[in-house]
Amino acid sequence: MSGGPLAGIRVLDATGVIVGPTATLLLAEQGAEVIKVEPPEGDLMRRLGGKARQPGMSPKFLHFNRNKRSIVLDLKSEAGRAVMRRLAARTDVFVSNMRARALAALGLDWASMAALNPKMIHCTISGFASGGPYDGAPAYDTIIQGLSGVAACFQRQTGEPRFAPFVLTDHIVGIVAAQAICAALVGRGRDGAGQAIEVPMFENAAAFVLSEHMGQRTFGPEGEFGDPRIMTPDARPLPTRDGHICVSANTDAQARGFFDAIGRPELKEDPRFRSVGARLENVAAYFRVRTEAMAARTTDEWLPLLRRHDVPAMRFHTLESLLDDPQLRGSGTLTEEPEQHTEETMLGLRHANRYSGSGAAPSRLAPRLDEDGEAILRELGYSETERTALRGRGGSGS
Amino acid sequence: MSGGPLAGIRVLDATGVIVGPTATLLLAEQGAEVIKVEPPEGDLMRRLGGKARQPGMSPKFLHFNRNKRSIVLDLKSEAGRAVMRRLAARTDVFVSNMRARALAALGLDWASMAALNPKMIHCTISGFASGGPYDGAPAYDTIIQGLSGVAACFQRQTGEPRFAPFVLTDHIVGIVAAQAICAALVGRGRDGAGQAIEVPMFENAAAFVLSEHMGQRTFGPEGEFGDPRIMTPDARPLPTRDGHICVSANTDAQARGFFDAIGRPELKEDPRFRSVGARLENVAAYFRVRTEAMAARTTDEWLPLLRRHDVPAMRFHTLESLLDDPQLRGSGTLTEEPEQHTEETMLGLRHANRYSGSGAAPSRLAPRLDEDGEAILRELGYSETERTALRGRGGSGS
Repeated sequence: MSGGPLAGIRVLDATGVIVGPTATLLLAEQGAEVIKVEPPEGDLMRRLGGKARQPGMSPKFLHFNRNKRSIVLDLKSEAGRAVMRRLAARTDVFVSNMRARALAALGLDWASMAALNPKMIHCTISGFASGGPYDGAPAYDTIIQGLSGVAACFQRQTGEPRFAPFVLTDHIVGIVAAQAICAALVGRGRDGAGQAIEVPMFENAAAFVLSEHMGQRTFGPEGEFGDPRIMTPDARPLPTRDGHICVSANTDAQARGFFDAIGRPELKEDPRFRSVGARLENVAAYFRVRTEAMAARTTDEWLPLLRRHDVPAMRFHTLESLLDDPQLRGSGTLTEEPEQHTEETMLGLRHANRYSGSGAAPSRLAPRLDEDGEAILRELGYSETERTALRGRGGSGS
Repeated sequence: MSGGPLAGIRVLDATGVIVGPTATLLLAEQGAEVIKVEPPEGDLMRRLGGKARQPGMSPKFLHFNRNKRSIVLDLKSEAGRAVMRRLAARTDVFVSNMRARALAALGLDWASMAALNPKMIHCTISGFASGGPYDGAPAYDTIIQGLSGVAACFQRQTGEPRFAPFVLTDHIVGIVAAQAICAALVGRGRDGAGQAIEVPMFENAAAFVLSEHMGQRTFGPEGEFGDPRIMTPDARPLPTRDGHICVSANTDAQARGFFDAIGRPELKEDPRFRSVGARLENVAAYFRVRTEAMAARTTDEWLPLLRRHDVPAMRFHTLESLLDDPQLRGSGTLTEEPEQHTEETMLGLRHANRYSGSGAAPSRLAPRLDEDGEAILRELGYSETERTALRGRGGSGS
């Protein structure tokens, strides 16, 4: 087998922006055929994802939609919905992030789809698990970050509630959705049956946060939240004479090596720092020692010195220096490549995982709007006359 | 089919701490039988995950190891490795986060394992893709956050490089690994062949960061990084008279509704705010208007008012208030349950996704160290005499 572990799997993708496209990106990178169904104006992210070099091809759109095919279907028209039904009949997976009412109005709910194709895995990425008090409320990444405890953890760390500098819950829940879809495909492999799966953003994000930080509250209402090593304001790359460094000296052996490396061997016997438990109790003092020590030398002086004492440490990368990282370039995760339909090159990202047997999917840039519409209609068996009619009526075509 | 989409799948789990246990937690919650192989002293997280009510059962350990079985094997002994081989012969998936050299020394590398069971999916979660300049370097979450651009994004947001208040890259890459494992199982379902997969933390984390923030750098070395709506220091829950609120007014309709809701309809015609593009250009000014307006009323006054104008908004939850959230409790994601082996109750988390056909896996608390050792040896066909000998020799048994 070649072409990626999901070669041969067909995915019908009615999602937009980030959470859904993250899910289907993983599937596409693993070799699934992903057909991205776009409204006539295209996925919002084509325009909202930063300035583009060619219309509708913003950088964020490019990075989240590699290896996918695009067809424009106007699902408000019966002709568009008819094409959608023909696509649904032959797909393995359908993914959307519409609300339940909108899905049903378009005939894309599980009951309608199962009638066409009972073997389908029908995945809905929702804001909130259906049936609960927030069912159907609008869900955007920052709303979910604020509600699920992500912003609250920043408040504990620095005093002020903040959002992470990522569309964090969209991006994480997209990966969760791809995982759930593949688990359901594994289940179908055994019993042959399709099913509907629901992946709610809020519940997934809250579980992500609470699994790390429920802490002593797990055991009762008097307990403290949080992991102090993470919540301390000192949890940060440490300034050196010329930049920053990341040091992770957590085990006893690493802490002892660290005290030797900074020329303070007497601290090895300091009762505050002598064991994992003691350093956890005195985490602020321990982090202060680390911070003070690192300021004395440059990053390039520290790295070999810490390595000699078996203390895990690496440089801090700015976004600029990250683009030149030899590991990231060497592994092919970051690659200079031609930008399709232009004469220019761009920096592209590639799936980071490796598969010894199935290998990687062939890489293709994100599609222009409706780039594959004509070919897909032909594969579905529409005659030239029908295709012309469809495209003229807005059933497909930009 | 019932018992979760992965019912019937066997997973042999030689991981510890967070990244590996996150991967196998998802599989366990979806119904896979996960056998957690622990060294005689147990997974480090049993002790490092916060104060425990019973020995070795820290809250973090409890939340990341639900639904798994535990057996102690001393892989430094030939007897322990012999049990491991017998487990490997009947497993579908093997997961570890050891470095390549350590795996090979224990006979757990893909070449050795494939000889026993060529249909196995052999997943290694590594720090860095093998073959690159950092191959084999120690990888801890904070080191990966500092190297992969996570900390750099905080620097762009607030001026200072920081770590996220989560073991963010461990936690995300664990989900990525579970996804890759299931994709490989789907592949095996078609061609019957096992394979080795490698999931590198650094490359996955850097791709996560850069897909969002490569921005104009995608097109050349002169371009700007980042999404300004996310990188601005104003990207945060907004203070109200009595707390904070999260407002997401991004489309034109939402922005107009927002200006009406705050009693400043004249801003609808302000050229700085009249379109998505204009608001993006003037993001600092737009966020300032939002911040100033929200301070005038309480959260409970704003929520219905914003809803009437179709402006997406939700309250900000502290970790305390999150635990009482009716949606989180109502959906069963957060559940009060008896703590096994004690007379007390605890707050437990549950898999957030729903599967209409295969349903949920039966829920079981995280295992005590070696809780299932005896039963697993019996299932492997070891006689009582052999089991006694094994446990006496440290092959299994705590």
